[in-house]
Amino acid sequence: MSPKIGLVICSQRNPRVGPQIADFVHETITQAFPTTDLSLIDLAVWNLPLCNEPGIPSQIKSPDQYTHSHTQAWSREIAAHDAFIFVTPQYNWGYPASVKNALDYLYHEWTGKPALIVSYGGHGGGKAAAQLRQVLQGLRMTPVERMVLLAFPDRDVLMKGAEGGDLGLTGEGTFWAREKEDITAAFGELQRVINNV
Amino acid sequence: MSPKIGLVICSQRNPRVGPQIADFVHETITQAFPTTDLSLIDLAVWNLPLCNEPGIPSQIKSPDQYTHSHTQAWSREIAAHDAFIFVTPQYNWGYPASVKNALDYLYHEWTGKPALIVSYGGHGGGKAAAQLRQVLQGLRMTPVERMVLLAFPDRDVLMKGAEGGDLGLTGEGTFWAREKEDITAAFGELQRVINNV
Repeated sequence: MSPKIGLVICSQRNPRVGPQIADFVHETITQAFPTTDLSLIDLAVWNLPLCNEPGIPSQIKSPDQYTHSHTQAWSREIAAHDAFIFVTPQYNWGYPASVKNALDYLYHEWTGKPALIVSYGGHGGGKAAAQLRQVLQGLRMTPVERMVLLAFPDRDVLMKGAEGGDLGLTGEGTFWAREKEDITAAFGELQRVINNV
Repeated sequence: MSPKIGLVICSQRNPRVGPQIADFVHETITQAFPTTDLSLIDLAVWNLPLCNEPGIPSQIKSPDQYTHSHTQAWSREIAAHDAFIFVTPQYNWGYPASVKNALDYLYHEWTGKPALIVSYGGHGGGKAAAQLRQVLQGLRMTPVERMVLLAFPDRDVLMKGAEGGDLGLTGEGTFWAREKEDITAAFGELQRVINNV
């Protein structure tokens, strides 16, 4: 059976460009690897409150030890996946609060699982990606070394993205044609890590 | 007039040890610098939702351009302070979502202002402090170079802190006696930065 991979949309802003970019990543991967079992995990749909669990996640071994039903559901969702791709914007040189909040809710559900980071921003979001990679290591995940940085080609596109406008990423002729190769290569690396875990 | 300095309690967990540690920092500073104008900003009291402003903070120049009243109030609070001390825990090698969320709500209210980071954790929270310092630079703040790391002396104290128990930090004889000197020295550096801005 194919490993079940969760494609996490880390942005929760409204408007936002995160779903468009996640779809672009999804389409790129399934074109190159048609049998991949890739499912979207949209943090805006989960809309978890700022963590309100009284317990310490690393001390909790079973979902029924969580106090809140939203935490139990989130625990089951993450436990059901074998690996993750985080599609994250960069805000002020760091990761968004939304993805850190979602990560910090749990612990054992994440540990040992491979992960790939795809970041986007004016310069590709490399600072957010590096910080997020460190957090995944703190959670004892196995992030692949290679990361994908999607840089907006100019300020107009950056602002259009920030306003949730259509960036024309589907189909041929996107400005990220070369980045499609990066995504494919990085996903190949994720698959190798998955096979070695 | 003394500069108005906000002492930000970055943790929002419940239970939490953040207020005890902020009180320890507050007491240490006011003992050494009695005329300091230091006021608590408790993120748990503010309890901002995950950022739900439609606008891009860096494009907003006036508080009345924010959509939500909680953002307008938060903008006025931050605009009213000249400098900040962030008292932050480390979660999974990074900063808590709560402080990143509070920072990302605004932009011009933060820029140019000096800041000091005091972190705490099993090993002092240095990874979270370094990540947070990068975010403050992303916001064009002026973080002082020196940071204060408060390490819990052993696992029992760490767990007691995580459960919000009394760490006995007030008065004499605390296990962080040497760290009081660190806080005083770092605050002196913050004052020098404030005087040079």
